[in-house]
Amino acid sequence: MTQLLHCPQLSLCSYTEEAHVASVTQAGVAPDHFYGTTIYPTDVFIAGEWLRVKNQRMDAAIALNYTPTLSAECKLLRDLEVGDLVVVGEEGIRIPDKTTANPPDREFSFMSSGVSSERQVRLIVERLANDLLTYRESGWKVVITAGPVVIHTGGGDALATLIRQGYVQALLGGNAIAVHDIEQALFGTSLGVDMQQGINVRGGHRHHLQAINCIRRCGTIERAVDQGILNHGVMYECVKQGIPFALAGSIRDDGPLPDTITDTVVAQQEYARLLHGADMILMLSSMLHSIGVGNMTPAGVQIVCVDINPAVVTKLCDRGSVESLGVVTDVGLFLNLLVQQLTQQTVPKLTQISG
Amino acid sequence: MTQLLHCPQLSLCSYTEEAHVASVTQAGVAPDHFYGTTIYPTDVFIAGEWLRVKNQRMDAAIALNYTPTLSAECKLLRDLEVGDLVVVGEEGIRIPDKTTANPPDREFSFMSSGVSSERQVRLIVERLANDLLTYRESGWKVVITAGPVVIHTGGGDALATLIRQGYVQALLGGNAIAVHDIEQALFGTSLGVDMQQGINVRGGHRHHLQAINCIRRCGTIERAVDQGILNHGVMYECVKQGIPFALAGSIRDDGPLPDTITDTVVAQQEYARLLHGADMILMLSSMLHSIGVGNMTPAGVQIVCVDINPAVVTKLCDRGSVESLGVVTDVGLFLNLLVQQLTQQTVPKLTQISG
Amino acid sequence: MTQLLHCPQLSLCSYTEEAHVASVTQAGVAPDHFYGTTIYPTDVFIAGEWLRVKNQRMDAAIALNYTPTLSAECKLLRDLEVGDLVVVGEEGIRIPDKTTANPPDREFSFMSSGVSSERQVRLIVERLANDLLTYRESGWKVVITAGPVVIHTGGGDALATLIRQGYVQALLGGNAIAVHDIEQALFGTSLGVDMQQGINVRGGHRHHLQAINCIRRCGTIERAVDQGILNHGVMYECVKQGIPFALAGSIRDDGPLPDTITDTVVAQQEYARLLHGADMILMLSSMLHSIGVGNMTPAGVQIVCVDINPAVVTKLCDRGSVESLGVVTDVGLFLNLLVQQLTQQTVPKLTQISG
Amino acid sequence: MTQLLHCPQLSLCSYTEEAHVASVTQAGVAPDHFYGTTIYPTDVFIAGEWLRVKNQRMDAAIALNYTPTLSAECKLLRDLEVGDLVVVGEEGIRIPDKTTANPPDREFSFMSSGVSSERQVRLIVERLANDLLTYRESGWKVVITAGPVVIHTGGGDALATLIRQGYVQALLGGNAIAVHDIEQALFGTSLGVDMQQGINVRGGHRHHLQAINCIRRCGTIERAVDQGILNHGVMYECVKQGIPFALAGSIRDDGPLPDTITDTVVAQQEYARLLHGADMILMLSSMLHSIGVGNMTPAGVQIVCVDINPAVVTKLCDRGSVESLGVVTDVGLFLNLLVQQLTQQTVPKLTQISG
Repeated sequence: MTQLLHCPQLSLCSYTEEAHVASVTQAGVAPDHFYGTTIYPTDVFIAGEWLRVKNQRMDAAIALNYTPTLSAECKLLRDLEVGDLVVVGEEGIRIPDKTTANPPDREFSFMSSGVSSERQVRLIVERLANDLLTYRESGWKVVITAGPVVIHTGGGDALATLIRQGYVQALLGGNAIAVHDIEQALFGTSLGVDMQQGINVRGGHRHHLQAINCIRRCGTIERAVDQGILNHGVMYECVKQGIPFALAGSIRDDGPLPDTITDTVVAQQEYARLLHGADMILMLSSMLHSIGVGNMTPAGVQIVCVDINPAVVTKLCDRGSVESLGVVTDVGLFLNLLVQQLTQQTVPKLTQISG
Repeated sequence: MTQLLHCPQLSLCSYTEEAHVASVTQAGVAPDHFYGTTIYPTDVFIAGEWLRVKNQRMDAAIALNYTPTLSAECKLLRDLEVGDLVVVGEEGIRIPDKTTANPPDREFSFMSSGVSSERQVRLIVERLANDLLTYRESGWKVVITAGPVVIHTGGGDALATLIRQGYVQALLGGNAIAVHDIEQALFGTSLGVDMQQGINVRGGHRHHLQAINCIRRCGTIERAVDQGILNHGVMYECVKQGIPFALAGSIRDDGPLPDTITDTVVAQQEYARLLHGADMILMLSSMLHSIGVGNMTPAGVQIVCVDINPAVVTKLCDRGSVESLGVVTDVGLFLNLLVQQLTQQTVPKLTQISG
Repeated sequence: MTQLLHCPQLSLCSYTEEAHVASVTQAGVAPDHFYGTTIYPTDVFIAGEWLRVKNQRMDAAIALNYTPTLSAECKLLRDLEVGDLVVVGEEGIRIPDKTTANPPDREFSFMSSGVSSERQVRLIVERLANDLLTYRESGWKVVITAGPVVIHTGGGDALATLIRQGYVQALLGGNAIAVHDIEQALFGTSLGVDMQQGINVRGGHRHHLQAINCIRRCGTIERAVDQGILNHGVMYECVKQGIPFALAGSIRDDGPLPDTITDTVVAQQEYARLLHGADMILMLSSMLHSIGVGNMTPAGVQIVCVDINPAVVTKLCDRGSVESLGVVTDVGLFLNLLVQQLTQQTVPKLTQISG
Repeated sequence: MTQLLHCPQLSLCSYTEEAHVASVTQAGVAPDHFYGTTIYPTDVFIAGEWLRVKNQRMDAAIALNYTPTLSAECKLLRDLEVGDLVVVGEEGIRIPDKTTANPPDREFSFMSSGVSSERQVRLIVERLANDLLTYRESGWKVVITAGPVVIHTGGGDALATLIRQGYVQALLGGNAIAVHDIEQALFGTSLGVDMQQGINVRGGHRHHLQAINCIRRCGTIERAVDQGILNHGVMYECVKQGIPFALAGSIRDDGPLPDTITDTVVAQQEYARLLHGADMILMLSSMLHSIGVGNMTPAGVQIVCVDINPAVVTKLCDRGSVESLGVVTDVGLFLNLLVQQLTQQTVPKLTQISG
């Protein structure tokens, strides 16, 4: 984490040096000593004034734009073009006090950050439900990252319900969650196990391949919905509710589904596009996709990370920011409890407890 | 695991050698080459006939009694007395086919054994609820081993309900589960965290010590109940329902409570006494006590082990017997869901699915 | 796992039905009821004779080729072309006894399969060293899959040594292992921590970005080696020894390096090409890439999987085949010990212990 | 953790209230509102002066002694006697700045506290070796807490070497580590697995029982050494070098060995006696015993905790003090590497790196 210029009393700084810049001379390559960005809101001192950097994210360079007016934005190395002006060194950069990162009107009512499996998940669910109701009412943006464990542990219906009822504005995942959701919708099984009876179905180990083949025949998930072939589940609800989703390809994919974005650079762009403006991210049992999302997400976005493995939760919540909450629990039970709570709790409660 | 004489076709064995025995000459010490027992029902061939060994358990010697009639029983090394006749070597010992270990009239309806966190816990809960209803109706014996995580994760009320409603015939644990249950009953906190609001209470880190001090002042947990000081919770229900419990001491204990059996040999005797005749054991997030219980428990007893750590579940379920089921999940949510299911499901369903 | 026709006594089968086939009518889509393959060597009965399926792997279809002569091969759904003939149903398919999957002249000297953290890793290392010596001498092919944890835990030098000394014939991984290896080679740090002193270096959190930028400037890893900029480490040794490597892109990548294959379908093809003919695969702390590799790998290939997380090892070793060995340990120490053992043990010992 | 009176600038406190005290009226029961202690050095203001509390430990009461002179000490609830004066409330209590807890002349050279499996264990081992050499030379006290995993993972010889070479001043554990060490010494197996060949030995599953029986016959571990029956291993070295050990009983014990202290209150007293004055504690893969030890240990004692399970390491290191270091690694490899390092490094290096 950077130690640069955490300067709460800016008025005391009588003189500020201009940020140094250098030109990009080779596409996709930054100048030496380029400044690598963090998740924290950052200002650069250019032409005698502090500019707030746009599209804040980790591990980018800061590029200046002079048209239409002077501005600064985070730009990935691979996106740098010849002639771009990039900030180098550490002069003229400040990270305002982190406590201002979290706008007061989106105060999150959770107990203080941290990770523990020995904690009352029911309490957390109750407050998350309250926040989701408030967010929906206020038109704030909630993005979910989810892995196939959500389906295997019986959380698929609950996730579909959250989408149907308008609590989710975008879904990010990989090929696998969509395959297993569609397997469940078409065959009633998850990895060949009957989801109602918990027993292996004869020939069931091929269901996920048949699900992939079915969607490939239709052309896309959307067309499978339109043709009435796919008629419930998580992906169905995304199509029906018009909730955008991005499925990022990986080396372990079967198929893949035609919707899966096999180029990971394109997938990152699509993830970033869908994450833009997010107020809350729920990370549900998917370390790979959640790390990807974490890299793109500035401080100030509420993050709730649910996984049964404490090491995953610790890794994802270790952002040096106060807005992430880790919950070590069974994600299937968690989602079912959340939907149950939302059903009971039609209006958000007044929150008496500060974070 | 022993490989001895798994002999399903006993009629083919035309000749059987007598088991060899030797005398104990030093109290608490077995003769050389004594036969160490397993969890499986075992027969010894003595005086021309096969005797079924009584009190079957792991890691004991087999001692013969001649009065009133010839019998054989498992006896711990420390319990051997001078003059006891102990089976030595491997002659004249047989372990009948393991498939007969599980009486057909107590068929357990669970899916096949195994351990997985990627499984529908709700299905397991539904069937366990069904079995618990059957067991209660049939007068079969259910014993619970539980650790303090049950309380920290918000499962205390659910466990108290199971006891109050007659699903549990004995409770085994350590000092800690009782301390934390009583802390919650007296102060509403668990390790100083308010269980309704999920926040730290000022001075709350001392509540567990004050709970211990309070019970020490009363004399016993029972007297605290009688005096109206302890008026709800897991230990309260045990006292009120007359459900016996045993709290085994350990090196990590605070206090301890006056009820805690600080001598571990005495605690093992008390555990064994309460386990006698058990038909099902629920092991809830307590590796230490569950391993102790596993050592005392013969094959044929249904074991359901719930823990959030897959390594613990694997260790406890690895008994080489078919009756153990491991569930990797959040024990607090599990217990709440179980009570919810029992409430809905007043009569046991017919079970259509074989194990 | 398929239950089909495990038929050790094939001579007793007096009559065999022909396998059924159907044509592909849409590119990348299999006919209904196509047979999905497993990791086990598979035969199809076509035109009156049993054909062994080529390129055996999981989750593929079986396509027939008639030119130059009749043959059958595993083909991924996405690779199917209009007009391909694909096996459907389960007639005319057999999986010969699994025990023949492992050629007797490549007997692996390890203790029986299984997973445990409570095991003597030194013994396993000793035998793996012995096997690696034999494999190198015999010209057998060893492929390594590795994650960045290998570098963070101090195993980088040891892995580089294995490559330099000819024990490794291909390296598979992601962007991250290469980035962290190159960070260590260029800056002496791993995620900004000095690898000799174990302390955070000022500004070190940007080293991995600078490493990426440096290679992007050079054009490829190979050119960075040619220019003398990258002069030691894992990737350096791959270039110098002419050991092919494939870096598969993922959603979590920084950069990526110019060598990283961002299209995951292309990356799978390259993985499969490098895995072709592998006799042993070492999977070193990379669940994502190792699952990908496992899907492509037929039974009969020795797999040794090392990870500090028992759940990962269990998942990777759960192939229903006898040739996988899981080791729950610290991968950095494991690799250092392995190199130390190889240095001491110049000729392979006679192996007295059967698997 | 207490928030009381962390008062670095004590001179600014112009007036201090006397601590309040109350009498014990029932043996083993503290007065209401007694002050429960923490691990931090604590002062009480009595009779106009600040007294440093003796025998500092967690979860005790503070009792005053008036003879021979006024003093204050930590006393467990169960040890309170009628008439003892105990501090109640929070007046007149201060916890001086925690940074003074660690005497500067015992500076520990480790990298900053924390827990990670992605870290160079070799670096940690190198520095621990350096510290152990310094400690031995300086006559400082090192206590080891160890579980049976040390033996199963092949660390037994290394631990025996540490004891033989004078690096250890006391050994704390349970029945199991002694049983498995003695099994290995007598039979060459650990849980029935041959430690040289890694294979199961016929009948080996009974070796641990036979080891117990053997020591029971001898009377004590010491007598088994005297009689030449036990002639190497961890417990042998303790006896031969006169290093005191305490084996605490637990509910899971087989046997137990005659040396095992079955009463856990007595075991806690013996642990506390052996821990008195410890400068460093190595906690090796034993959560149960290490938690017990942690409760008895004041801040300022160096703690190094080694376990393959990150959750255990996190739990043990979470003391709110700066002197604990968690290492997530394979304890068998760790100990072997440590002994190897100590052998190479005969004199302690000058430490250039501050903690």
